[in-house]
Amino acid sequence: MNELSEQPCYSAIVAAIEVISGKWSYSVISQLCQGAQRFNQLHRSLAGISIKSLTDTLRHLEQRGIIARKVFPTVPVTVEYSLTESGMAYSEVLVRMREWGINWGVKSL
Amino acid sequence: MNELSEQPCYSAIVAAIEVISGKWSYSVISQLCQGAQRFNQLHRSLAGISIKSLTDTLRHLEQRGIIARKVFPTVPVTVEYSLTESGMAYSEVLVRMREWGINWGVKSL
Repeated sequence: MNELSEQPCYSAIVAAIEVISGKWSYSVISQLCQGAQRFNQLHRSLAGISIKSLTDTLRHLEQRGIIARKVFPTVPVTVEYSLTESGMAYSEVLVRMREWGINWGVKSL
Repeated sequence: MNELSEQPCYSAIVAAIEVISGKWSYSVISQLCQGAQRFNQLHRSLAGISIKSLTDTLRHLEQRGIIARKVFPTVPVTVEYSLTESGMAYSEVLVRMREWGINWGVKSL
């Protein structure tokens, strides 16, 4: 059997599931995989997301260390969001999830 | 950037997330990684799970093709649960999730 059965590490799995629990988490991470983006860029790229949902999702991901927020002293101030190292590592998990979904998941729904 | 940004495949990711959405899904999959088990074995191994929760979780996982149910014509009938190929593939996703959680996740909670 694979190594999963030796170390349940339930809290580690819960932490991973928690990141993606927000409705827009995946979409924002997927967008930021394409590089750092400002709030308005993200809002334009994510059709159907409200300002509040985007604000909440960015805060959710920032609190979990998935994204970083950089403020530029322009007038008005500019804020740029990008994936952290943890966020880059998480996007690899998403790739594995998507691969499973494509190979097995979507048929079984 | 990694391949995630090229193919959102949102439905594939949703299918993967959906599997693990039940509270006990991870624990049941983790148990079955150790080999096929009967209902009572699972119930004994999963401290705190009710008969209803175990029944619901097994049905949830069976409906999504993660586990298979084998009925033996004993008296009384014996039912054995095991991971399918899709289930084995999904446990690899869980291993990646746990790795991320151990390396990055648990600190950021």
